[in-house]
Amino acid sequence: MASYRIQQFSRHLSANRPAKHPLDPLDAYEIENVVSIVRSQKGNAHFNTVTLHEPRKQDMLKWLAEPATAPVPTRVADVVAVDRSGQAYDVLVDLDRGIITKWEALDGVQPMIILEEMINVEHILRKDPKVIEQCRIIGIAPEDMDKVYCDPWTITHDEKYGTKVRAQQALLYYRPHVDDSQYSFPLDFYPVFDVAKKEVIDIDIPPVRRPLSLAKPNNYHIPDIEKEGGFRTDLKPINITQPEGVSFTMQNRVIRWQNWSIHVGFNYREGIVLNDINFFDKFEGKPRPLFYRLSLAEMVVPYGNPDHPHHRKHAFDIGEYGAGNMTNSLALGCDCKGAIHYMDAHLPTQAGGVRTIKNAICIHEEDAGILFKHTDFRDDSTIVTRGRKLLISHIFTAANYEYCIYWVFHQDGTIQLEIKLTGILNTASINPGDDTEGYGTEVYTGVNAHNHQHLFCLRVDPNLDGQDNTVFQVDVARSPHSVGSEKNKHGNAFFAAKTKYKTVGEAQADYDSSTSRTWDISNEAKANKYSQKPVSYKLVSREVAPLMAAEGGLVWNRAGFARHAVHVTKYKDDQLYPAGRHVTQTSGIPSKGIPEWIMQNPDENIANTDIVLWHTFGITHFPAPEDYPVMPAEPITLLLRPRNFFERNPCMDIPPSYAITPSQVQQGKDGCHCAPSKESVNV
Amino acid sequence: MASYRIQQFSRHLSANRPAKHPLDPLDAYEIENVVSIVRSQKGNAHFNTVTLHEPRKQDMLKWLAEPATAPVPTRVADVVAVDRSGQAYDVLVDLDRGIITKWEALDGVQPMIILEEMINVEHILRKDPKVIEQCRIIGIAPEDMDKVYCDPWTITHDEKYGTKVRAQQALLYYRPHVDDSQYSFPLDFYPVFDVAKKEVIDIDIPPVRRPLSLAKPNNYHIPDIEKEGGFRTDLKPINITQPEGVSFTMQNRVIRWQNWSIHVGFNYREGIVLNDINFFDKFEGKPRPLFYRLSLAEMVVPYGNPDHPHHRKHAFDIGEYGAGNMTNSLALGCDCKGAIHYMDAHLPTQAGGVRTIKNAICIHEEDAGILFKHTDFRDDSTIVTRGRKLLISHIFTAANYEYCIYWVFHQDGTIQLEIKLTGILNTASINPGDDTEGYGTEVYTGVNAHNHQHLFCLRVDPNLDGQDNTVFQVDVARSPHSVGSEKNKHGNAFFAAKTKYKTVGEAQADYDSSTSRTWDISNEAKANKYSQKPVSYKLVSREVAPLMAAEGGLVWNRAGFARHAVHVTKYKDDQLYPAGRHVTQTSGIPSKGIPEWIMQNPDENIANTDIVLWHTFGITHFPAPEDYPVMPAEPITLLLRPRNFFERNPCMDIPPSYAITPSQVQQGKDGCHCAPSKESVNV
Repeated sequence: MASYRIQQFSRHLSANRPAKHPLDPLDAYEIENVVSIVRSQKGNAHFNTVTLHEPRKQDMLKWLAEPATAPVPTRVADVVAVDRSGQAYDVLVDLDRGIITKWEALDGVQPMIILEEMINVEHILRKDPKVIEQCRIIGIAPEDMDKVYCDPWTITHDEKYGTKVRAQQALLYYRPHVDDSQYSFPLDFYPVFDVAKKEVIDIDIPPVRRPLSLAKPNNYHIPDIEKEGGFRTDLKPINITQPEGVSFTMQNRVIRWQNWSIHVGFNYREGIVLNDINFFDKFEGKPRPLFYRLSLAEMVVPYGNPDHPHHRKHAFDIGEYGAGNMTNSLALGCDCKGAIHYMDAHLPTQAGGVRTIKNAICIHEEDAGILFKHTDFRDDSTIVTRGRKLLISHIFTAANYEYCIYWVFHQDGTIQLEIKLTGILNTASINPGDDTEGYGTEVYTGVNAHNHQHLFCLRVDPNLDGQDNTVFQVDVARSPHSVGSEKNKHGNAFFAAKTKYKTVGEAQADYDSSTSRTWDISNEAKANKYSQKPVSYKLVSREVAPLMAAEGGLVWNRAGFARHAVHVTKYKDDQLYPAGRHVTQTSGIPSKGIPEWIMQNPDENIANTDIVLWHTFGITHFPAPEDYPVMPAEPITLLLRPRNFFERNPCMDIPPSYAITPSQVQQGKDGCHCAPSKESVNV
Repeated sequence: MASYRIQQFSRHLSANRPAKHPLDPLDAYEIENVVSIVRSQKGNAHFNTVTLHEPRKQDMLKWLAEPATAPVPTRVADVVAVDRSGQAYDVLVDLDRGIITKWEALDGVQPMIILEEMINVEHILRKDPKVIEQCRIIGIAPEDMDKVYCDPWTITHDEKYGTKVRAQQALLYYRPHVDDSQYSFPLDFYPVFDVAKKEVIDIDIPPVRRPLSLAKPNNYHIPDIEKEGGFRTDLKPINITQPEGVSFTMQNRVIRWQNWSIHVGFNYREGIVLNDINFFDKFEGKPRPLFYRLSLAEMVVPYGNPDHPHHRKHAFDIGEYGAGNMTNSLALGCDCKGAIHYMDAHLPTQAGGVRTIKNAICIHEEDAGILFKHTDFRDDSTIVTRGRKLLISHIFTAANYEYCIYWVFHQDGTIQLEIKLTGILNTASINPGDDTEGYGTEVYTGVNAHNHQHLFCLRVDPNLDGQDNTVFQVDVARSPHSVGSEKNKHGNAFFAAKTKYKTVGEAQADYDSSTSRTWDISNEAKANKYSQKPVSYKLVSREVAPLMAAEGGLVWNRAGFARHAVHVTKYKDDQLYPAGRHVTQTSGIPSKGIPEWIMQNPDENIANTDIVLWHTFGITHFPAPEDYPVMPAEPITLLLRPRNFFERNPCMDIPPSYAITPSQVQQGKDGCHCAPSKESVNV
């Protein structure tokens, strides 16, 4: 249906390139085009960001609704350019017309840190006399400076530098050999690096020095494991194959699978962005819109050690570095198994070229175990049906840590976001026998891994049978009637207490396990045929660590989105990022993003209108030695589940593995082995 | 090591039967032997239960520690026998000596309900004039009584009958055709059935009658789905194979896999019981004991509708029916996929025969995705290692519902318990247009599915490097120092606040999401080599719905174990069941099981001694139409994770899928595709 307009839209592009959807990321050609337009009009800038400026929602909805007649949204690039003086600009480039439509100098903010600003820091530091001197003090000879490595971190915020200096804090480590894991040899001092000047402007030195650890390396690479006794040999292969191919189809970036239809986007910041998510409802005989846009829009990793300068460790990995920018190129049969569809990602280089991440997105199906089952105890008549899931995933590396992001679609209409945390703990030095004072764990000799949290912000832009949606807080509640009273004689009565969020100001809620709190996103104008309750999707999220930073503290100020598990705002174009557009080096005074938007109009209506739900979730991590030297993946998951949305279980028509009816049992017939796994064997 | 003693032990048994472990369930031969001993000495009894009376722990520990010299624990059967007058007895039979060592009449309690007491109830009810009359009133003609079906439920407790009458409540349904799902046609009245007399002794009739629904059936069997348009045809097979076999070995019932060693037991009540769980620690060069015994020891499913007689719906499916007794026989390639090792279960029949559940337990491996990964952003040197898990599972059907129980073992030392809820909602009738009053959902025309909870009790008998263990409550806590103060200048400080449980009375705790509460089971006598923290396993459980029944109400009284998320008691032989040994028809006054044990000695020491941790967890379910006619599986999960237990990530020696070192990158070499999935393909 939309394909005609996709064709029409693609007129704007060169003839021999594939047709595009207005939400497709900029491709390599378009990035080059943007660079060329900016350079032709503004001189030889550097590029911090070149990404799709998403079409305004009203334009996009018109196009999605009436692709044959609605205007095609203009193709616009969102650019952060930096001139040779270091001044950064927010820029919009109209790709259809080939012109710059916005060119606005950034004042008092810093754009995000990009790869080119990190990769060479350690080479500069190794030559800095002040750094060499500090290294000497803790036991590193000047001739060993090539063994000193640096993970350059955003400074987050330090009042000493504000936002005028583009500053990084240098987390320094030592590698006895290039293949040794540096994280067992953290240095005890922290240079501050001026990215513009490319020089060290300060060094934070602890009051009591911690000489370089003399422990033997704690490594994870193959030669080391072989030296320690080698690899286990008792694992037999598990092969996963789809001899008849996969069950999904891709039309450019629109995937169709098991009633789902999803546009798979990708940007420098959020990584995977899912748009225009629909589910074909066989009862209504049509696709029903569920979500206009889903993404992981921000995260913050606050560390809990108050000693200077560790309070500065609270990277916003999405807003300050970009989950897209840090995305891994995936390898077949390693990161994902089975029959895999990969998608590449195209990003700008600082110099205006194109960096392509091959296999940035992995799409594949997995068996999901039993989807549903019932056996009648009378006669063992049975139905058992196996489920399947579709995973759209990417993995990004934030210095020491990796985040594996899995958007999982289930046949019953459930959307699951699963995140696996792995990689390496951020480490600091500790002298043998010193007390971590409860703020960390000595995970290896001389290695102090500080307490920290991983707090993520899921942005949910719902479209449940239309844009006018409402969020209800749902708390399990005991009957107010006392035991023995007529209405609750035996005390068993309980119900779902619903609180309707009417204004932005009142929609700031914490998770509460004592009421098993969930949130319903509902379309109040449409009732379920049977239950007469509004059609809804329920947010079920149980790993919801509260922000442990104290109110008024640095992290609390900067990560306003993390103060509550749920915020709801009125939809506004460009309110995409809950800690604000430019997060790097913000002071949090005033707080950017969600707190700012709430303050602008706390009474703004959010009932039966176009809304966005922001959900902050995550875990608190007290490191332990078994997390080291590489951490076994720790999973976090949450669900968006249809409730009163479908009139019936929407996956009853999946062929069962086995089914036999009561009358077949009575007649001594065999049941139907309809879709068993014929390759399964008894051992 | 233990095999010699196993041989010696097996002397007690007939020569041509396999060697036994003292914790092996009674086999068919032994059950027959028990029946024969009881009958020869006590006449022609019926059998409610014939199961292993587990060896006393002190005897068993001696045997496990020194199998060559310690005495073999006596083989004893735990029996509930019922004489022809209906009197039940708790019985112990010494199988080694062939004698009855205990014969104790049960007074004021009822043994659990068994299959033979359920299967014929509907046939009796169909002929009962009072039932026929009530059916007629709501629109079922007497000649259609063969279409009336009954799910006989435990009466739970009704003061009208107490414990003297062995009573069931009959949940009645109608099937227009034998293959129609009865749950769309619930009848509005509830006969009470005397199991001993085999007759209806009462009928609960609602004040306003609800005639039989005239809606068309809402079915799930193949012919019905075919009539509705048939099955989807777009699912391509996913094949899972292990061409070289599985990675585990079984020695009788002891499984060894990836450093794990576990004895897999099974009984009528808990189903799977895992004993003597060890993990071979390569750093210490020996197997380390983790848990003496793990099981799902009880559950309760309280419904939230206060109308008479729905308050009686709160079955203890484990204590009143038995998860083992209700276990499904599994089919290859249907319930589990891949290379499967099945184990059968043997249970007594009421008449003293043996019922064998073929394939009662499913054991298999699954790919577990990425186990750990790290990429160095400098050079893309990488390691990525895939994980594997071992699943030991069974599925049981509790009338309408099914529970799929997966004990999952991970290579990193984590034990996961995953439960999938599926099957069919318990349904009650509702007149068109009537209000559910918040206590249920009309999931289909005339079908009211009441709010309910599924609360499970996990029994953890730890053995972390020995029997003397301690439980700590762990709460994430903000620094007490205010923002701006020297010790918390920027407000980021937080730590793990630990509360040591010293007495049984103080070890009664709720879950608290505001502190991300977890519990450490620790051996305080042993510190981790690096962290110096006590070796521990952490209980991480987030689906912890509080019991919604009001204090002093019927369910609150009966399900004392569910009042708190965690209880800790001093280990005592035979304190296996948290709602007591005989749960059926108990009034809860006084509460049996855990509350009783606490009351006996609230000051009893539980620090550094042999303890049991009881964890009640679960969900609250507000039904919705998409749960009907069969519910897509809803998962619940919890973890027992090693923390400060190992000195390092214990799975670093698993062959990576791909790894390349920095020096290999520098030298332009290729990395090691050590254990990639060669069968994976690009699509």
